[in-house]
Amino acid sequence: MGSRRNFVKKTAIVGTGLALAPSIALGTNTNYNNKLNVGLIGVGLRGTNHLNNLLLRDDVNVVAICDIDQRRNDIALDMISKAEQTKPKVFGENDYDYRNLLASKKVDAVIISTPWLWHTRMAKDSMIAGKYTGLEVSAANTMEECWDLVNTHEKTGTHLMILENVCYRRDIMAVLNMVRQDVFGELVHFRCGYQHDLRFVKLNDGKTAYGKGVEFGEKGISESAWRTQHSLLRNADVYPTHGVGPIATMCDINRGNRFVSISSMASKGIGIHNYIVKNGGKDHPNAQLKFKQGDVITSMIETSNGETIIVTHDCNLPRPYSLGFRVQGSEGIWEVDGNRIYIEGKVEKSHRWDEATPWLDKYDHPLWKKYGVKATGAGHGGMDFFVIQAFIESAKKNIAPPLDAYDAAAWSAITPLSEVSIANNGESQDFPDFTRGNWVKRKPYNWIKDGY
Amino acid sequence: MGSRRNFVKKTAIVGTGLALAPSIALGTNTNYNNKLNVGLIGVGLRGTNHLNNLLLRDDVNVVAICDIDQRRNDIALDMISKAEQTKPKVFGENDYDYRNLLASKKVDAVIISTPWLWHTRMAKDSMIAGKYTGLEVSAANTMEECWDLVNTHEKTGTHLMILENVCYRRDIMAVLNMVRQDVFGELVHFRCGYQHDLRFVKLNDGKTAYGKGVEFGEKGISESAWRTQHSLLRNADVYPTHGVGPIATMCDINRGNRFVSISSMASKGIGIHNYIVKNGGKDHPNAQLKFKQGDVITSMIETSNGETIIVTHDCNLPRPYSLGFRVQGSEGIWEVDGNRIYIEGKVEKSHRWDEATPWLDKYDHPLWKKYGVKATGAGHGGMDFFVIQAFIESAKKNIAPPLDAYDAAAWSAITPLSEVSIANNGESQDFPDFTRGNWVKRKPYNWIKDGY
Repeated sequence: MGSRRNFVKKTAIVGTGLALAPSIALGTNTNYNNKLNVGLIGVGLRGTNHLNNLLLRDDVNVVAICDIDQRRNDIALDMISKAEQTKPKVFGENDYDYRNLLASKKVDAVIISTPWLWHTRMAKDSMIAGKYTGLEVSAANTMEECWDLVNTHEKTGTHLMILENVCYRRDIMAVLNMVRQDVFGELVHFRCGYQHDLRFVKLNDGKTAYGKGVEFGEKGISESAWRTQHSLLRNADVYPTHGVGPIATMCDINRGNRFVSISSMASKGIGIHNYIVKNGGKDHPNAQLKFKQGDVITSMIETSNGETIIVTHDCNLPRPYSLGFRVQGSEGIWEVDGNRIYIEGKVEKSHRWDEATPWLDKYDHPLWKKYGVKATGAGHGGMDFFVIQAFIESAKKNIAPPLDAYDAAAWSAITPLSEVSIANNGESQDFPDFTRGNWVKRKPYNWIKDGY
Repeated sequence: MGSRRNFVKKTAIVGTGLALAPSIALGTNTNYNNKLNVGLIGVGLRGTNHLNNLLLRDDVNVVAICDIDQRRNDIALDMISKAEQTKPKVFGENDYDYRNLLASKKVDAVIISTPWLWHTRMAKDSMIAGKYTGLEVSAANTMEECWDLVNTHEKTGTHLMILENVCYRRDIMAVLNMVRQDVFGELVHFRCGYQHDLRFVKLNDGKTAYGKGVEFGEKGISESAWRTQHSLLRNADVYPTHGVGPIATMCDINRGNRFVSISSMASKGIGIHNYIVKNGGKDHPNAQLKFKQGDVITSMIETSNGETIIVTHDCNLPRPYSLGFRVQGSEGIWEVDGNRIYIEGKVEKSHRWDEATPWLDKYDHPLWKKYGVKATGAGHGGMDFFVIQAFIESAKKNIAPPLDAYDAAAWSAITPLSEVSIANNGESQDFPDFTRGNWVKRKPYNWIKDGY
């Protein structure tokens, strides 16, 4: 959603809370024309990417869309019209009109692609409304919100899937396949993170989304309108899931393993300020702001199985993109940087890296083998096809998704926990056990058997 | 030195302590034939490598050697003889015979290349004896020993150089050169570590140094005789200096900056045990041992200038060697893994890595330009030539070396501090200020001006 905060008009439902939300028909799959009826909350750049993938499917009707930026609704309607599909119901009169979308009995499942501060609020409402819920990353901003996701899921019995697309990246799924086939032996250590120069995303001129200007918030548009505020006020890893999600699936977090504790440190934060001075001059009002977020934030996580995971957030300095994955076990190691691998006794030369590509090809995940051609072009190198596929297939059967409310909570908890740790000189923080002990009996999700 | 502990015979000096050490002629440069007279304590594999470099120089006499393994003394004598140089005095009758070497007025400077537990003890004695002291890494094992190095240096006025050869690696010096020329802008974040599969070093068959057997300690030889014990009993980064030394020179630790705090986490430790079981069988007595050292130990260090440094110790799992360097600032980033660099506005394509090689060539350090040809073949790709060069030139002038007692202490303190942090669930530990406040006025060492 674009500029939600610009809308001040509110409907009657605003402020009355969920007690007055329309009555809810629990359970999904009302099977409108034998298809899953999906509603989209947020059809900004991310939401329309999902829309695009939904329009390519023959098992989905997009029956409702909601964005407070009507231009975005128009773009979405145009896409739907060009795909020769039925015009959906449109919402977005005000900040809380999404609740009217949720009240629609026609909607089976909802995909939420809005600014971060709306994620948990909307997901909670959606679960209460009985809609199978897909939620964009990060899922939650605070520890209370992490619990909201879990508790609402448990209370309502409605499923939540965190739509972490990187879990479906081709190399990640090949490595997951290798992990399952014991290629790395017993797992010991991981690295990951979000290392992406976002200065040109966090700041713009209020007209162009990327590349020009040093405005944000009220004067910015697109992501700068809402995302930058988190860099201004929070010294935390505010975006951990692209890195830690894939690692969590490999080491079975919440399914026989769990995050136990975290310790975080932040470097100085100079990148955004420098960018403002360089592109807007030292007299620009934004050059006077003190951005609290450290440029490079490092977190060390310990799991109950004794692995360590190093998570990096590095978004304010000039650097090429890398999620910096490393998977290391008793038999070998894979690193995405340098595209290299070493498996004891199985690589060409002792103590020398092999190129990873032939290994990734050999262990290409069955899902990618099956759907790879279809996935290509779906966005982000095919990942987006798979994450939507998993969501739709799970929602159609109304079964637990591969990446669920407990995953959303545990991964997102890195944000508030890293913030406290940084503020306390790296003091380690305990993760809550969002499964309330159930991680000891929950089984790893079988992505191959279940087909998504 | 090889098997020091095998010698039980002690001379009278043993146990009497330093009070009875021979009287000391403070000051060096007695200028025996206008050359620096060097004594070597420890002529094992590392010591004879230094010897080899010393024998190639025309400004050094090797006047004394000391090893309790007489076979190592014989090898050293043979090297000296083949170089057609005067036979040195030989010591090594027992563990404390090195003190007799230190008592020799003929010796101006001493290089200590012995097992870790002897490093600080010998360096302290050497400084008290007034010998310009070169000490192999790591310099100290405990916090008390870190202070011993500093306090003895201050009390005696004798200089200590920590012989950290990686500070002189060609790529490291080129990057140091880039740092000094502000190519990376304001420094923000660093990574480094010792990532080296040492299982075949820590375990052997008591006959071959590397590659066979699963013995160590009394039944092992070479490094396995003394090094492995540290993996058995200490869950700490026991070998931090190859990584952190070069980074410390780049960010001026103890010279306008200092290490402030550290937080460390250890993964499970399974690598050594697995290696023993695989190569010695599960019934081998060593398969019953519990090695305390985690396989991957990660430390986060915060500096007073607000940089963060991630230091890794990863020596018990199958993996190719890498010190994992990364240098990141406001203008760009260099990573040794992948041999890549990004400098904003100066690389070919925005958001794309450049190959680092042309940059490293362009900023090749003046010292490497001058001595590169000579250095090649000196050991470890030329680094060893330079570290010895710096030591000898500093000792000849009796001036402070580039890497001094404060550096030795600060870098080595990572071992005891990481140990306490790990034992306390990652609780951050404060570094002592070994300079007693002087870091605020100490100037960065000018490696170019001073010529080494």
